[in-house]
Amino acid sequence: MNTDAATPRAPTASDVLAAQARLRRYLNPTPLHYAERSGCWLKLENLQRTGSYKVRGAMNALLAARERGDLRPTIAASAGNHAQGLAWAAYRLGMQAITVMPRNAPDTKVAGVAHWGATVRLHGDSYDEAKAFAAELAAHNGYRLLSAFDDPDVIAGQGTVGLEIAAALEPDVVLVPIGGGGLAAGVALALKAQGVKIIGAQVEGVDAMARALRGDDAIVEPSATLADGVRVKVPGLLTRRLLRTLLDDAVIVREAELRETLVRLALEERLIAEGAGALALAAGKRVAGKRKCAVVSGGNLDAGVLAALLQDVRPRPPRKPRQRRRERLPLPAARPPLLPAGLSPFASPSASALRPVRTDAIETLIA
Amino acid sequence: MNTDAATPRAPTASDVLAAQARLRRYLNPTPLHYAERSGCWLKLENLQRTGSYKVRGAMNALLAARERGDLRPTIAASAGNHAQGLAWAAYRLGMQAITVMPRNAPDTKVAGVAHWGATVRLHGDSYDEAKAFAAELAAHNGYRLLSAFDDPDVIAGQGTVGLEIAAALEPDVVLVPIGGGGLAAGVALALKAQGVKIIGAQVEGVDAMARALRGDDAIVEPSATLADGVRVKVPGLLTRRLLRTLLDDAVIVREAELRETLVRLALEERLIAEGAGALALAAGKRVAGKRKCAVVSGGNLDAGVLAALLQDVRPRPPRKPRQRRRERLPLPAARPPLLPAGLSPFASPSASALRPVRTDAIETLIA
Repeated sequence: MNTDAATPRAPTASDVLAAQARLRRYLNPTPLHYAERSGCWLKLENLQRTGSYKVRGAMNALLAARERGDLRPTIAASAGNHAQGLAWAAYRLGMQAITVMPRNAPDTKVAGVAHWGATVRLHGDSYDEAKAFAAELAAHNGYRLLSAFDDPDVIAGQGTVGLEIAAALEPDVVLVPIGGGGLAAGVALALKAQGVKIIGAQVEGVDAMARALRGDDAIVEPSATLADGVRVKVPGLLTRRLLRTLLDDAVIVREAELRETLVRLALEERLIAEGAGALALAAGKRVAGKRKCAVVSGGNLDAGVLAALLQDVRPRPPRKPRQRRRERLPLPAARPPLLPAGLSPFASPSASALRPVRTDAIETLIA
Repeated sequence: MNTDAATPRAPTASDVLAAQARLRRYLNPTPLHYAERSGCWLKLENLQRTGSYKVRGAMNALLAARERGDLRPTIAASAGNHAQGLAWAAYRLGMQAITVMPRNAPDTKVAGVAHWGATVRLHGDSYDEAKAFAAELAAHNGYRLLSAFDDPDVIAGQGTVGLEIAAALEPDVVLVPIGGGGLAAGVALALKAQGVKIIGAQVEGVDAMARALRGDDAIVEPSATLADGVRVKVPGLLTRRLLRTLLDDAVIVREAELRETLVRLALEERLIAEGAGALALAAGKRVAGKRKCAVVSGGNLDAGVLAALLQDVRPRPPRKPRQRRRERLPLPAARPPLLPAGLSPFASPSASALRPVRTDAIETLIA
């Protein structure tokens, strides 16, 4: 799986800090956004270059290789985002990248790789078939094979997401989607020592890591899911080892919850997330926390899929805002003088749109 | 139009600074995002509370009124976003708000107002009919009538968008959509003294302000447009007076360009903008600048409209990235050894996905 070393060294928090120093020149921090209606902060990696956090790990791996004098072309198998991240990083550094993607990879991800000038090979029907072919190409051509998650440089690069969250916010809980485990392992390395709880999110039927952490290593074909980015059959060995000690809990989300969360992100937060990108926020509903932060890991969703979701999924209306405490300022009389019906502000033509003016005064704390 | 004073005082840059001090407690700065494929920075007011910058002006107007001891209920006519901003601000401050919206206001905007507990009246078929009815209600009930743009407190509040842009970036050009002119006037007050060029963006057939600034005050029924937020028949008097000296240029965008820009924002930048929100970026294509920044003014778009746009509009593929300068690092041989066809990385099954690995090394400057 990792051709650089027979037994890959597990990365540490120092490696995440080193990655941050390397990446600073190339990647600006992504924004944190407070999703008021969900009561959760969002780390917007869908606004990251190439539309996903994966560019961090790929860039760190290329930079670290260059420091070691390793200038071989790099090859990677990927459902899409790792390939795009690698393509962008290779473009920026003038290095060579070859990517193998399964034939069912979303068009937007395939186009994203080609855009940055990397070679694209479509091969096989799953990530695992693509991976086997990439390994074959690497062995024949002397390329460096870069795992999408089971590589110390990649894990350290993804961990910079955690450092950025901690710099902007003092979170008590951080939620991350888990496929192979690279993002979760990196973020946990960055934040665990700061006393932050790390919760992984997986989809029902695509929960290989959650099962592996419980000691169940059976290889099961993952279900079909909107969250193609986390549809991994065999999670990483390195990530498994790290998460066994660093992950606080794993939450399994139902596919329907994922779809609803994705549509709510679009309509309430005006953000487009891919399936895996909505996963952590979906899991966040089941987790208590004062300053929760969910990583929106990516936003590469095909236009047709989004259009269909927007037409099919009608999310439940959001909860009404709470009234927290009364304000001390005096207020005018709440009830206006009697008026002809047409001029009363309370005679709305639509009953559903009508809600009475609240007569109590409230002041909420800033979130 | 403005009931507080017969001849409203024009706001100054000091008023924008005062607004910033007032709003700091309630509204976090919104992010700036670099749209790599457009070569333009975006000020993300679609991620603002209530999904639009309008909450700034409304909040500043309520806070300024409270400072003056004016605690009357506030009424506003609005195509949607000013109403939502006012509703949220009134909710936060425990004050009363009544909003009048035209019957064709987007569902998402009507629901947004009701969510925050303000009274909603749907009246008339246009902003102007709603405005006349709001004025009538205000006169009968002793409410404060708050214009969506022609009010010094509102203009000063919107200007805080400009201060936030200048604090994060040194822009040379800032592009803003123009309806009544409140945002443009406020941003110009904030940035003009810093030597920033301010360019307004309007839609073909909805260009009342651009015409007024050329001296053409004829009242023309605006065309139908996706950009409902800027569909204003009579622009503000105060804003007109300010923009006559402060606006550098106005760009008129075609409806088709607007639609394409909105879809590109969704697919390339993973951001949902409403029609008016995509307007400044659409205009940005015609404007030169080293550090251009377009204000994405809002994101309240109906789900059905977005779904239809995603299905109908196929944006042209983005330009290929430039190759800027060669890197000095040595590289391995570009051509791999001869291989059986199936194992060559260059034998891609899809001709369109195939692009050769570049043999020259490049390094681009960080954007």
